[in-house]
Amino acid sequence: MDKKFLELKTRLAEIQDITKTAGLLGWDQRTLMPARGAAVRAEMLASLGKIAHEKFTSDDIGRLLEDLRPYEESLPYESDEASLIRIARKDYQKSMRVPSSLRAEISRLSAQASEIWVQARKKSDYSLFLPYLQRQVELKHQYIECFDETDNAYDILLDDYERGMTTAEVTAMFETLKKDLVPLISDISASQKNIDDNCLHGQFPIETQKNFITEILKRFGFSEDSWRIDPTVHPFASSIATSDIRITTRYYENFLSAALFGSMHECGHGLYENGVSTALERTPLCRGASLGLHESQSRMWENLVGRSRAFWTFFYPRLVAAFPAQLGTTHPETFYRAINKVYPSLIRVEADEATYNLHIILRFELEQEIINGKLALRDLPEAWNARMKSYLGIDVPDDAHGVLQDIHWSSGMMGYFPTYSLGNIISAQIWQRVQAEIPDLQDQFARGEFKTLREWLRERLHRHGRKFTPRETLQKVTGNANIDVGPYTRYLKTKFSDIYNL
Amino acid sequence: MDKKFLELKTRLAEIQDITKTAGLLGWDQRTLMPARGAAVRAEMLASLGKIAHEKFTSDDIGRLLEDLRPYEESLPYESDEASLIRIARKDYQKSMRVPSSLRAEISRLSAQASEIWVQARKKSDYSLFLPYLQRQVELKHQYIECFDETDNAYDILLDDYERGMTTAEVTAMFETLKKDLVPLISDISASQKNIDDNCLHGQFPIETQKNFITEILKRFGFSEDSWRIDPTVHPFASSIATSDIRITTRYYENFLSAALFGSMHECGHGLYENGVSTALERTPLCRGASLGLHESQSRMWENLVGRSRAFWTFFYPRLVAAFPAQLGTTHPETFYRAINKVYPSLIRVEADEATYNLHIILRFELEQEIINGKLALRDLPEAWNARMKSYLGIDVPDDAHGVLQDIHWSSGMMGYFPTYSLGNIISAQIWQRVQAEIPDLQDQFARGEFKTLREWLRERLHRHGRKFTPRETLQKVTGNANIDVGPYTRYLKTKFSDIYNL
Repeated sequence: MDKKFLELKTRLAEIQDITKTAGLLGWDQRTLMPARGAAVRAEMLASLGKIAHEKFTSDDIGRLLEDLRPYEESLPYESDEASLIRIARKDYQKSMRVPSSLRAEISRLSAQASEIWVQARKKSDYSLFLPYLQRQVELKHQYIECFDETDNAYDILLDDYERGMTTAEVTAMFETLKKDLVPLISDISASQKNIDDNCLHGQFPIETQKNFITEILKRFGFSEDSWRIDPTVHPFASSIATSDIRITTRYYENFLSAALFGSMHECGHGLYENGVSTALERTPLCRGASLGLHESQSRMWENLVGRSRAFWTFFYPRLVAAFPAQLGTTHPETFYRAINKVYPSLIRVEADEATYNLHIILRFELEQEIINGKLALRDLPEAWNARMKSYLGIDVPDDAHGVLQDIHWSSGMMGYFPTYSLGNIISAQIWQRVQAEIPDLQDQFARGEFKTLREWLRERLHRHGRKFTPRETLQKVTGNANIDVGPYTRYLKTKFSDIYNL
Repeated sequence: MDKKFLELKTRLAEIQDITKTAGLLGWDQRTLMPARGAAVRAEMLASLGKIAHEKFTSDDIGRLLEDLRPYEESLPYESDEASLIRIARKDYQKSMRVPSSLRAEISRLSAQASEIWVQARKKSDYSLFLPYLQRQVELKHQYIECFDETDNAYDILLDDYERGMTTAEVTAMFETLKKDLVPLISDISASQKNIDDNCLHGQFPIETQKNFITEILKRFGFSEDSWRIDPTVHPFASSIATSDIRITTRYYENFLSAALFGSMHECGHGLYENGVSTALERTPLCRGASLGLHESQSRMWENLVGRSRAFWTFFYPRLVAAFPAQLGTTHPETFYRAINKVYPSLIRVEADEATYNLHIILRFELEQEIINGKLALRDLPEAWNARMKSYLGIDVPDDAHGVLQDIHWSSGMMGYFPTYSLGNIISAQIWQRVQAEIPDLQDQFARGEFKTLREWLRERLHRHGRKFTPRETLQKVTGNANIDVGPYTRYLKTKFSDIYNL
């Protein structure tokens, strides 16, 4: 039996090597590749996707997974071995539904469409992107048809990013969220308190930003022997191995927040991947449990850590030292309020903590309408703009600042967006537990120390990788298997009541 | 029959995608990868090597190649289709000899040993590297045993880099070369003419070097939409696609020549890959015909172009403008002589044109002795140092400047070195033809124009890729299928007789 397990593990390791290789091709494509490398790159990604899929859906894997049932049952549920068999079997059952040819086409199209999206976004020309999005949605429908019918066709897409979560559950959570959020945002608007965030706009030389950000990331856990940070159009994090973590960020010389908080965000993703037990390396368990949990980590480091007073107690004097001309006369409290200013804005990744979720709810609704045939793609920019007006009260000047702002649809990632808000919600739920168990956490931050937090997260969450379901994982971290919106809305209310004197 | 050809082509394209992907993994490993990514990277490369080999040596490929014999014979020998079948069959017959497990082990060891080599070279500690080299040679012997016995076991290794070339042929060429070269170098030494190359040593800020080099490369054919240039320890060129060419170089702040001529050298390799017909993209024909021909291109752009008076007629004023403090008082002729100074030196990649070949002959002899069991690896540094003393008259201060200087052996590339001198020889043979057909070539260089040369090379050599044997290819470019040492030694004699007033 051990021999069969070894065979399964060896085969899965080879497949994981291909998957991680595809990850590197993708990282390279989005950070360094010369533009004209795109056509062949799309073919390379398609070939790797096809090979990984063919190898995983082989009869041999199916037979091994069946043969290993008694072995699995003889082992503790939580053991690496039982978990590998269990999760691989679930993945296998799902993969068997989708023909290789469809996988390859999705993969090829995604690579092509991502290139086109970069151009379309640059030119703010939705019509360039439309045919690719149309094809992407067609393929999504073909993908959905591979599975048993569900209450909502969107469930199939959601499940790829948040195993076991349904559209109905998300809708319910988002309704609760809206119920608390809309009055809060309205109270903030009514407060008439005008926060001055001029200090974030000015001239911030990119090299100085880079150096300051690196100082933060190193205190978070970034180290040059295992990480890289590179500039890109749309920031992301990628893990080639637990000790080869690559994050990317976008610098603006005239705006400090984008690279600053974007880098902390991607570092949070990186820390999760970096913290997975090395015993899980080269297995399909070697990544986060779900995108919601992943996002809980990025949002935690970005917001609960990076936008806290304690954090800036330590870092603000250093920031002033880096940019004396720009910030020398700005009071720390002014800066703290500026980075936490709530105001409706166009770009999701730059949105404040309170309005951010409205950007997500908008996308979640539009995606469902697209998938369920209630919205024609040619009408999407109009629908986008109308909803931005209705939810955030703002006019979208062009598609680059509207419907073309995110990479997700070009890459075929529909069903992904809701996990961002799930991440926000989960981050506060975990934070509640962190604060209970590390009472002097804020004092540590004020001394520039983040190791206790990082190690707590590694021990309670990161090291498990994808061994458990999202619910099981959440149970391990917080003692509660259910996502609870309460801590998040309480966190927002407390924080913004203070800032806006509500 | 067309359908079978399409099937073959599709399968070969997928294999080529894997091979090119492995190339990108290797490029990334040597330029950007965080150090601790090495262990998993080695596994990834081993998996890709294994998959490519398994896919290529499948029964299906063998059957297709057999079935396609009549189709191949119905087509012109020079057609892309017949060439693809013909070359793939030769590759197949060779690959079938080597078990997947051995391929995978060579690939895994090479990735590991390359990492160790970087450390060993840094510490100048041969003992660190020795066990990996020992294993590498063991695997080379296993590899050789996969093939029919040849006159010289080294033939098998040589054939991987220079198809159809034998050790005896190379030995004969190198003897001819030595016969002309040794008296020339001796005449140069006897000339008592002391060339001052102080102008190449000084402070040359790396950013300024980069900008100046980019200006040269752009005139050669480098364009940002299809190329990259990055710093690395050991310079190399890599082609991910014909329009995704990556060259690397090594900058020294206190020495100008290394990055300057190294970049032109790698650009020559890049131009060959960039010039292959796009009709051959994603086929095994999409690369140079042999390493000797490849090296003829790098050495041509480095030496016949980059170390010529005409080249510097255009570029020297620009170089002085870039480094006015360092070069403002140096006469152009002084500079020209400095970059062409002949003197025995330690490092092959920095050697002058005349002594360079002695570095190669040394390696060619040592490799044969290692492979034929005449030299124990523990005695290699001593043998290296003794031969450096005998051939070049110099003492090797440490192994970093001796036996550890090149990456080749760590990567399992034994049989590769002789192709460097073959490249030198071929470059002059091609140059003879170029000069006959483009009479105003030197005038063009003096105006900073290199397009006529590049397009001539593309038309006569580059576009064919690997469609033809090295001999057939040489015939197409020069009208002579045989490598002729004559033009090269005549070129060296003329050039250095002028510089040294012989």
